[in-house]
Amino acid sequence: METILSQFNKLKEEFLKDLIEFIAIPTISTNPEYQDKMKEGAQFLVKKIKSLGGQAQIEETGGHPIVYGEFITNPKSPTILIYGHYDVQPPDPMEEWISPPFEGTVRDGKLFARGATDDKGQLWIHLAAIEAFQRANQPLPINLKLILEGEEECGSTHLIPYFQSHKEKLQAHAMIISDTPFLAKGVPTITTGLRGLIYYEIEVKAVDKDLHSGSFGGAVDNPIHGLSRMIASLHDEKGRIHIPHLYDKVRPLSQEEKESLEKLPFSEEEFQKSIGAKQLWGEEGYSILERISTRPSLDVNGIWGGYTGPGAKTVIPKKASAKLSIRLVPDQAPKEIARLLEEHLQSILPSTLELTIKPLETSIYPYSADTSHPYFQKAKEALSQAFHTDQVVFARQGGSIPFVPIVAKTLSIPCMLLGFGLPDEGAHSPNEWLDLENFYGGIETMIRFYSSLGE
Amino acid sequence: METILSQFNKLKEEFLKDLIEFIAIPTISTNPEYQDKMKEGAQFLVKKIKSLGGQAQIEETGGHPIVYGEFITNPKSPTILIYGHYDVQPPDPMEEWISPPFEGTVRDGKLFARGATDDKGQLWIHLAAIEAFQRANQPLPINLKLILEGEEECGSTHLIPYFQSHKEKLQAHAMIISDTPFLAKGVPTITTGLRGLIYYEIEVKAVDKDLHSGSFGGAVDNPIHGLSRMIASLHDEKGRIHIPHLYDKVRPLSQEEKESLEKLPFSEEEFQKSIGAKQLWGEEGYSILERISTRPSLDVNGIWGGYTGPGAKTVIPKKASAKLSIRLVPDQAPKEIARLLEEHLQSILPSTLELTIKPLETSIYPYSADTSHPYFQKAKEALSQAFHTDQVVFARQGGSIPFVPIVAKTLSIPCMLLGFGLPDEGAHSPNEWLDLENFYGGIETMIRFYSSLGE
Repeated sequence: METILSQFNKLKEEFLKDLIEFIAIPTISTNPEYQDKMKEGAQFLVKKIKSLGGQAQIEETGGHPIVYGEFITNPKSPTILIYGHYDVQPPDPMEEWISPPFEGTVRDGKLFARGATDDKGQLWIHLAAIEAFQRANQPLPINLKLILEGEEECGSTHLIPYFQSHKEKLQAHAMIISDTPFLAKGVPTITTGLRGLIYYEIEVKAVDKDLHSGSFGGAVDNPIHGLSRMIASLHDEKGRIHIPHLYDKVRPLSQEEKESLEKLPFSEEEFQKSIGAKQLWGEEGYSILERISTRPSLDVNGIWGGYTGPGAKTVIPKKASAKLSIRLVPDQAPKEIARLLEEHLQSILPSTLELTIKPLETSIYPYSADTSHPYFQKAKEALSQAFHTDQVVFARQGGSIPFVPIVAKTLSIPCMLLGFGLPDEGAHSPNEWLDLENFYGGIETMIRFYSSLGE
Repeated sequence: METILSQFNKLKEEFLKDLIEFIAIPTISTNPEYQDKMKEGAQFLVKKIKSLGGQAQIEETGGHPIVYGEFITNPKSPTILIYGHYDVQPPDPMEEWISPPFEGTVRDGKLFARGATDDKGQLWIHLAAIEAFQRANQPLPINLKLILEGEEECGSTHLIPYFQSHKEKLQAHAMIISDTPFLAKGVPTITTGLRGLIYYEIEVKAVDKDLHSGSFGGAVDNPIHGLSRMIASLHDEKGRIHIPHLYDKVRPLSQEEKESLEKLPFSEEEFQKSIGAKQLWGEEGYSILERISTRPSLDVNGIWGGYTGPGAKTVIPKKASAKLSIRLVPDQAPKEIARLLEEHLQSILPSTLELTIKPLETSIYPYSADTSHPYFQKAKEALSQAFHTDQVVFARQGGSIPFVPIVAKTLSIPCMLLGFGLPDEGAHSPNEWLDLENFYGGIETMIRFYSSLGE
């Protein structure tokens, strides 16, 4: 392994140059005008994988293509499936960028560019690790399969069907997803759990048409009032979600998880400061970190009704609407929680109103990894060595990644969320950046991890 | 008077023709492109008043002009100040008009046109009544002052200052405003009270920026939830506004008012049906008619926050906003109720949130007429004779007319809301119409009323 690491050290500049070349292709998946650029990005990856000695092909999906790559060195060796995405968010607002979004620019040890951390930089870590083996004339100690998506920023519409219809081809011993951040700089983090999600649009209707509040005010149950009463009742005074049986299936944290959570380097004070909250809030009896990563949460994500323009309009609107979502944790099943929510909304509906409930998007299962799998320990060691720290942590995250629980179930393999981002890299904002220590540390981690699997 | 009435009967067709000519000028005050048409409308009125033997002039206001007219026949006779407005709402949506909005068209005893009932038709009733006297070669039995506004549909910005700076000139024994509807066809109605209004925009802020509901859900008091809790708490379970001392100054109805209210031809069932409400609602212990005309009411007129576009966005918004208004009844003073509301909102503000309260528009006082004034009785008799019915009613209305309470106070005269519209004439909608029986009945009413004052 020393040969490879020493070769890697010589190649650092080159790897960065290659990444900047990749970043220069504006693969904006949400904008149809960039369809050709998406193709160019996919072809760039195919060419790169082939140049590293792998097989690669573009898989048409009906949307933006998936790039599939393979490095099969020895059928008896372990096989790792790697996920990354080559599409990026639009760069707007353009005027806020200090350097052009598609011209990767290094300042203070950071690479600034759209896609630097989300996810081109993290994807490139894997290609660079493979290249380090190749350039050192060392065979890869394991087999690799790469699935590089072009629709992560626009809903991953075709990813799950692709997984489901290519089970055999994608079979592996574990999957690695590099699209998550460290808990903090210097704290390498393996994300071991994700929350699930259900998302609804609800509408309450009181009357057939907007009414004048002078002529009707006092005789009609304003739907904004009714909706507000319903929303207000969805939490109790202890910050718990007030939907019967919602917590029934929440799996309590193990003693080990609890202890590990308490040891995480997390400051509630800094958390509060970073978002400018007057006061933090939440479920009594749980720390902030527990609340945002291990407990279900309910949020109204949007609300609208009546007159919202400038000035005054004295209207009683005929209806009011809200978008409402619940983050789920193991072992809450989206279908069951959806049923509980729907039944509860009907049960608290004022008799003056009519309710329409519309589920939006596909539900997402919560995910928790079985960290007793030996690969987790090996990854932890690789991170520890590559980042020169004993403080490598396992931590759940509060967000959701739709395909992770499905892949884990479909392929029956552990999914390791081994990401190399940082929390404040502005993934979807102007001046997105990638920490170069994390970029190089990530490559070294993969070299060490693959080597340890081959031993 | 018989001479005049018989003359009037001969002139009916001509009066309608004149009104249609007046209506043909598209005096849309809200659209700057129609500024010339507004001037043309004002000049049309000046010319008409002069042709009837009156004095008339255009009064520049800084906005659209006020037309002031005068018929002073005998300084010893009573003087009536008449209010009407010559501006109209925009006709949109144009495609829904059966006949062109500015080509007055008669179908089934109704004149269809923009402004037919609001307010050109009602304004013309007064000019036609004067003309009936003139054409019968009879002197007007009273003095008349006319104040014809061009900004009623765009906020009446300059009307109140005009009243306040022309107190002497406008001095009269009573004011008549013809811009309100009958309670129902065949039920001539003198509106004896109006509700007042205060209007606020409120904003609650939780954090400095929109947050991802995955990473933060469960640890931040979503401002939509907080705002909903506040709104939900503003009414109690008995439909009363839950703001301390809000009802302290509400003047109870007199026994006479109560009895009169109960006698009004009003069907709660039809009311409910007309608005398509699943169920009516309101303050326990009061009828629907009491609730909408004699009791204060609080309505959120608009609410917004977070993501309101199509599909799902998992955001915890940094803030949420609402427009909120209270209708006031005698003797609630806007300033005092505003103070109670502001103090109460502060007192129920969750400690997690910051509140901004912004008053919108000018407050409006509630109004109630002293119906013991002899003019009310005389107007009632005139209506009874002109409309051939004993069922002439005094009724409060739930809406607000800003200048009425101010004029009543500034000039210290009774304001009679003697309107000739009907509730379903679609004042601001396509195919607005005026009932021609009411048009002619209105003219006859004024002839009879003026005659009785001169006796």
